[in-house]
Parts: sequence; C-alpha cells; structure tokens
Amino acid sequence: MPTFQVTQLRLAKGLIDFGVGQPDPALLPLTALRQAATHRLAKDDPSLLAYGAEQGNEYFRIALAEFLTKNYGTPVEPGELFVTPGVSQGLDLVCTLFSQPGDTILVEEPTYFLALRIFADHQLKVIGLPTDDQGLIIEALEEKLAEVKPAFLYTIPTFHNPAAVTLPASRRQQLVQLSQQHGFLIVADEVYHLLAFSGRPPAPLSRYVETGTVLSLGSFSKILAPGLRLGWIQAGPMIVDRLVHSGLLDSGGGLNPFTSAIVRSVIELGLQQEHLKQLKVVYQQRASTLARLLRQHLAEAASFREPSGGFFIWLDLHDGIDAAALLPLARQHKVSFQPGVSFSSSQGLGNYARLCFAYYDSPQLEEGVNRLARALSEYL
Amino acid sequence: MPTFQVTQLRLAKGLIDFGVGQPDPALLPLTALRQAATHRLAKDDPSLLAYGAEQGNEYFRIALAEFLTKNYGTPVEPGELFVTPGVSQGLDLVCTLFSQPGDTILVEEPTYFLALRIFADHQLKVIGLPTDDQGLIIEALEEKLAEVKPAFLYTIPTFHNPAAVTLPASRRQQLVQLSQQHGFLIVADEVYHLLAFSGRPPAPLSRYVETGTVLSLGSFSKILAPGLRLGWIQAGPMIVDRLVHSGLLDSGGGLNPFTSAIVRSVIELGLQQEHLKQLKVVYQQRASTLARLLRQHLAEAASFREPSGGFFIWLDLHDGIDAAALLPLARQHKVSFQPGVSFSSSQGLGNYARLCFAYYDSPQLEEGVNRLARALSEYL
Repeated sequence: MPTFQVTQLRLAKGLIDFGVGQPDPALLPLTALRQAATHRLAKDDPSLLAYGAEQGNEYFRIALAEFLTKNYGTPVEPGELFVTPGVSQGLDLVCTLFSQPGDTILVEEPTYFLALRIFADHQLKVIGLPTDDQGLIIEALEEKLAEVKPAFLYTIPTFHNPAAVTLPASRRQQLVQLSQQHGFLIVADEVYHLLAFSGRPPAPLSRYVETGTVLSLGSFSKILAPGLRLGWIQAGPMIVDRLVHSGLLDSGGGLNPFTSAIVRSVIELGLQQEHLKQLKVVYQQRASTLARLLRQHLAEAASFREPSGGFFIWLDLHDGIDAAALLPLARQHKVSFQPGVSFSSSQGLGNYARLCFAYYDSPQLEEGVNRLARALSEYL
Repeated sequence: MPTFQVTQLRLAKGLIDFGVGQPDPALLPLTALRQAATHRLAKDDPSLLAYGAEQGNEYFRIALAEFLTKNYGTPVEPGELFVTPGVSQGLDLVCTLFSQPGDTILVEEPTYFLALRIFADHQLKVIGLPTDDQGLIIEALEEKLAEVKPAFLYTIPTFHNPAAVTLPASRRQQLVQLSQQHGFLIVADEVYHLLAFSGRPPAPLSRYVETGTVLSLGSFSKILAPGLRLGWIQAGPMIVDRLVHSGLLDSGGGLNPFTSAIVRSVIELGLQQEHLKQLKVVYQQRASTLARLLRQHLAEAASFREPSGGFFIWLDLHDGIDAAALLPLARQHKVSFQPGVSFSSSQGLGNYARLCFAYYDSPQLEEGVNRLARALSEYL
C-alpha cells in the first residue's frame, strides 16, 4: 500500500528529532473523541452543521469558560471568549485587524519561531526584547517604549517556548500597567499555561482582559489534539467586538462550529479534565527523564533550567558551541533539535538549542541524548 | 430552558428573510455526518488528531479530486488542491499572501457583499467592473487594465451571487488570456458551480489553473454543510507552494485535518454525491416556485432572470423603486431581502434586490412573496 502524506511531520526513518514541538501520537485521545462525537451527533440537532455564531457557539463557550475557570483558578466569562481555529489562525487574524504592514511589534528574545513567520507574512517590523530566567525584562521594555510605539507586544508568559521560563506575577502586573500607560496591545500566547506539572503558575495574563489592552490566545492543540484546529481568544468586550465584526466572520460565521460542538461534549463528559491530568503526569515524567539524561551526559557541554511545565528544555551550550553548526553532525548521528537562532528576531542565540520532551517516551529520550552526546564529543 | 446563540442567524420571530444566503436547516445532512464520523473514528488511526499535512490530508485530497473530476467534467488533480477552512478564510489568506494594503483589486458590479468586507479589512482599493446578463463584460475589463494593474480580480463566474448569471466559455477564455497578458491573478469564487439544476455549466475557471494565473475557491458550505468550515483552493504548483509555505501553515499545519478526515468518509461512502443530487432537486423546485410566484405577484414591479443553478434571484425593480427605501416597509410586513446597494462597490444598484430561494420551502416562499407584494403596493 502506498503511503500518502497525512500529518505535518516528515521524520526521516530512525531519526529522533527533539525539534518536534508536537504531542506524541500515542497520547492523542482518539477514544475520547470517538465517545464525544457519538454523544454529540446522536442528538437530533443539526445546528452544528449551520453557519455558527460569529463569537462561537454559546453552549461551547459556557463549557470552556467553566473548564478554564477551574483550571486557571481565575474567573473566565463565556462572553470574553471568541472561538478560533487554533492559535496560528487567531494570531493571523489579530495581525490583520490590529496591525498594518510596516508597523513595529515587540517580541521576546527568544520567541516562538513560527510566530515570526506569521509576522513576516504581515510585513511587520519585529523588535526582540531581552529576557532573563524570569522571562521578559520589564525595564528593557520600558526603555524601548520611549523609542517606539508598537502595534502590539507578543509574549509567551508561562512555560515559554522555547526558553521554558515563567513570568512572575509582579512582572505581569508591571507589563499590564505599561500597556495601559503606552496604549499598546499585549498578545499573550498562553497555550502552555494549563500544562503545569504541579501546582499553579501565576495567574494567566488573561485575568487582565478587562483592562482592554490584553488579548490571550488559548488552544486545544497542546491539551487535547492539534488536528482539531480549535482554540480561543480571551479578551475584553471591545476586542471581542472587533473580532466578531470582522469581514471574515461576517462572511463565514463562527470559525469552527462542528468541531467545537464535539469538543463541547469532550468537556461536558469530563474527558478533557481527565486527559489533561494524564498529560501532566506523562509530561512531568518525560521532562524529568530528559533533564536527568542531559545532566548525566551533557553536563560539561551545556546547562539548562529544569522545566516545571510546558513542552521544552532550552539548552545553553558552553564553550562557544554553535548549535546550527552542530546540527548536521547531530543529524549524521540520527538526532536533531531546533537551533537557537530560529527563535531570534536578530540572528542571535547561536549557542542555544531547544529540545522538546513531549513527543518521545523514555527509551527514545535516552537513545536521543546518547546520540546527542556522541555528536557533541565529535564536535568538540 | 434559556436559549443561547448557536448559529449565525438571528431571525426575528415570524420574519421571512429572503436575504439569508444559507442552506435550509432541514436540508443539513446530520445523518450522513453521523454515519461518516462513526466510519472514520472507528478506525484505529489517530493521525486525524495530529497537526495535518500543510496542503491537507492526501487521502482526502484524492477523494475530493475524484469527486470534482466527476462533477466538474474536467480533470482535477489531488496535487492542485489545498484544503481551507471555507472560502472566507481561503479568501482572507489569499489577501494576506497575494496583495498589500493599498493595492487595487477588481470585482464585478454587483459582487458578493461579504467579500467586500474581507477586502476592506485588508485595506484594498476595490474597483467594480460592469456586467451584463452573461456576467463580466470583457471589453470593460480590458479598458480598465489599460489604467490600473490590479493585485487580483475577484469573480464569481457561475450562478453569480447575487446576479445569478453565468459567464460563457468564450468569455472565460478571454478572461484567462487577459490575466496572462497583464499578469494579474484571477480569484474565482466557484462555490455555486456544482449546483446546476440540470446539465453542466461551462467548465469552471479551475480548469485553467495550469496557466498559473487562476486560483479557484471551492467549499462544502453550499453542497454539504457550512458548519464544517471546510473548503479548498485549486491552483497551479506555484500558488499551492506559496500557500503551503506561508507562516500560518508552517505554524499550525493543515487547516482542518479532523473535519476533512470525516468528510473524506462522506465522499468515499457516496453520501456527498447522494446529498448533492437531492439538493439539486430541492433547489430547482424552490427556484422555479419563487420565480413563478414573482411572475404572478410582482410582474409589474420587477423583472428578473430565471436562475438555472445556485441560490439566488436578482430582482430588477422598476419605476425607480429604491430597494433600501422599500426595506423598512417590507420588514413591517415581516419579509426581508438584501438590497442591491450592498453588492455595489460604488453605492450603486439601488433598484435591485437579492432574494434567496434555498432557505425556505414552498409555503414559506409563497407567504414571503405575498408579503413582499403587499409591501410594494403600499410603497408605490
């Protein structure tokens, strides 16, 4: 039987690619979706097949708001939620509606490399702001704001991709204050927020949506399944209103009525909560396994922060090791990663590498780190 | 039980709104979707939950290409198809990638009013070209091309929305020749093409995608269910390549893997062909009913072309009747429509009104026309 391309991933045979930022296919909840689809489609209600409400099906938003309220630990109102077909399309819509080609936007250095691609398609001028082990440095932002008026600031406040840092509550407050003083929008990519291994991170930036300068992007891609193309924007009434009354929504209606109706059942049947619980256990194990292996085999060549949630470890390579130069050698050893330079808006971060622990199980993580260690010892 | 907003439509109680351009909820194929979802999700393949191939799942594109080849009567290759979440989002992506704010684009006068909204969000300068009862007047386009270089021309060649006209084969050829001579893109909205009441319209503009200047938008919204948010772009390799390598696709992967996997089963089980056949019978009946009623009750006040496919009748109101002025009176009589001015890029077409025959059954069509006749007699 010939095989055809059905997923985004095209991994070379035998390659262990720590660069993949996707859930392990073995963790995709096919049974839950089967159960939810049966539950939803058994009802005699064809409304999920009609053009949907622009803001998203209201029953779905009620279920989602309840789920978020419980898991964020801060109240989320259904009226603050706008349903999207995932964060990438949400971000694309935000660029269309809240920026113009040529506008300046601010991002963290490092930042999510594929967001940079979306900004490039919208011809935005991207300025990277320095970060430390607590995320965005607020003083650096303040200095930059004296020079430029950005259309928006794109930030990943919790379990940062790639840096795995989390912005403390105090910096979140300062950030929101600055957005109000200087009149710019904060576009917070909060897709890893729900993936804390234990306890709760500082409240998401979404708790500040009432200020009108914060827009929070959420998604089912990391907590349920990316193939659903289902996410949300949480924002205050003026921003929700602009989204709902965009030309795109006026024409096509709600952005994912059929899938959101099925995911409503996933939530209402308790399957989302159950799956999230399971994911946290698995990801915590994988993160601690990868961290342990890196300490054992790469301690001299690299250091990193122990992750407390999310998908990634951000390796700081020592002794002038250049990740992009290491990559071809690593690939000869059938292991790969994302070199730091991809996450830079100014061609920097050459001595960093992003490793994802979510995609592989322990034996594969071990084999991958062994290969990486061999590649490194050849490189040095 | 409180009712929450679940669909795009908010019809006032008792109102018959000929302005609605949507399928009748009674015609939404819930049973087919139930059957297809069960069929697809019973398989032990979680790939539909992973990030999908950027161009769209290849098995789905093979099934769709076969369906289109049969129903268009012209060959369609899976490699020419790029899966979208519906025409509105396809059009939005086309604007982002193939135009810049301030660019001029050409449309027909009249044109699809909600496309105008999407163009406005992208800050495009829209110029309307005159049409006759065979659609776009090619000589007028040629004259305009001597003055302006458009980013693209947006056209609805078959069963035009709202004008219900179809561009003959000879004009299609001339149009494509002009796009090659002048180097502009034709963005063909072909969503009504498959809804011919009998026989086949001239081959879709998609047959010219090999030229590289034609991009054809298709959708399941009119032939299956709009709530699926599933459509496609058919185009030549260079355009498909640009779409596949956009930032949006790089980040989020394929645009609707879960739903397209289920619709693949709809096609493979023969349910799409069956549903399309049924829709054509119903829409033909409704179109001929509405046309008969209009001839009976409005013959003196308006004229129109008998539709041979699609969703709409385009009323040409006589004696200086202004549709926008008639509208409040009509609404008092609990009937509504889309006034012609909505479809104009230059505030013209005041004496036209678009009536949709797809949404209502015969008794409702009859009641609606009676009310419209009463409103008109009061207006005159």
